[in-house]
Amino acid sequence: MPKVSKEHKERRREQILDGARRCFARHGYEGATVARLEHEIGLSRGAIFNYFPSKDALFIELALEMSKRLTDVWLHDGFRAVLDAIVREDPDWLAVQLEATRRIRTDAEFRQLIERREEELKDVRAERLEQVRPKVREDVPVEDAAVFLSFVANGLALRHTMGDPLPDLDVIAQLVDEGVAPR
Amino acid sequence: MPKVSKEHKERRREQILDGARRCFARHGYEGATVARLEHEIGLSRGAIFNYFPSKDALFIELALEMSKRLTDVWLHDGFRAVLDAIVREDPDWLAVQLEATRRIRTDAEFRQLIERREEELKDVRAERLEQVRPKVREDVPVEDAAVFLSFVANGLALRHTMGDPLPDLDVIAQLVDEGVAPR
Repeated sequence: MPKVSKEHKERRREQILDGARRCFARHGYEGATVARLEHEIGLSRGAIFNYFPSKDALFIELALEMSKRLTDVWLHDGFRAVLDAIVREDPDWLAVQLEATRRIRTDAEFRQLIERREEELKDVRAERLEQVRPKVREDVPVEDAAVFLSFVANGLALRHTMGDPLPDLDVIAQLVDEGVAPR
Repeated sequence: MPKVSKEHKERRREQILDGARRCFARHGYEGATVARLEHEIGLSRGAIFNYFPSKDALFIELALEMSKRLTDVWLHDGFRAVLDAIVREDPDWLAVQLEATRRIRTDAEFRQLIERREEELKDVRAERLEQVRPKVREDVPVEDAAVFLSFVANGLALRHTMGDPLPDLDVIAQLVDEGVAPR
């Protein structure tokens, strides 16, 4: 029954990612020990590492999954909806990702893992940039526009993590759109 | 000789801030012990804590000093120059600030220290927002525009911390200006 098996695998994968996200948010990257991951996910380390070869791989998958999810929101519902989605994220989970940024530059193994995974996702990413093209003014490379949007999104995530009062997100989205949208 | 004394104090203050910045960048917030701060600054703990009552106070002063410096750059040379200034910052120093964001939300004492210091700087800040007003389109509150710019700046700082390739900063500045500048 390969179909059932595939569904089962997908559910398991989701269970692992959801539990790991909660565990990283609660305990931080270092504090999310294998024992705590087992407890929060509700599976043994053997079962977990059957799906993701290491804690780093699990963490990177979670970060990529969020990035993919937010890009989907942008494609389907616009950048205003992305801002809302960020504010709905658990600030502790955003904080753990911020805390990992230095490692991307300084930890060669961690960086390599990310680059390998991004290489695998290269075609998907190129296709998505194509889909985004009509939303961006023609005189600006779509890659630069995407980085610009990620700056604004990450800036909001940072502020959400700090717990500072948020600005009027309609205004933020308007400023972004007027910069980026086709003339 | 009160004038000499004032200059001496100012130089000492700079010496402490410069050494502390290097120390936080090199060792992280937790790793920057008082002994390491003494070593990097070249002054005894007594002398250091004569200027700043605690390690937290020293750290907060450094973060506010950077924020003030970048606002000055914006006022005098425009937002394009702010982007250059961020890229010239030590990515390890930016990383330490990113790593502290969660504490602003979760550590009441740390937050209170920041809020007290911001309260002291309230008049300066209001005056600066006034200076900024002519650079921002009239239909947008200048506070919201300032937060928007801080999002873009922090997004760039995050990317610099990760060591990822930077986008064309002229394009980024152009997108920002076309959103924010007076119509």
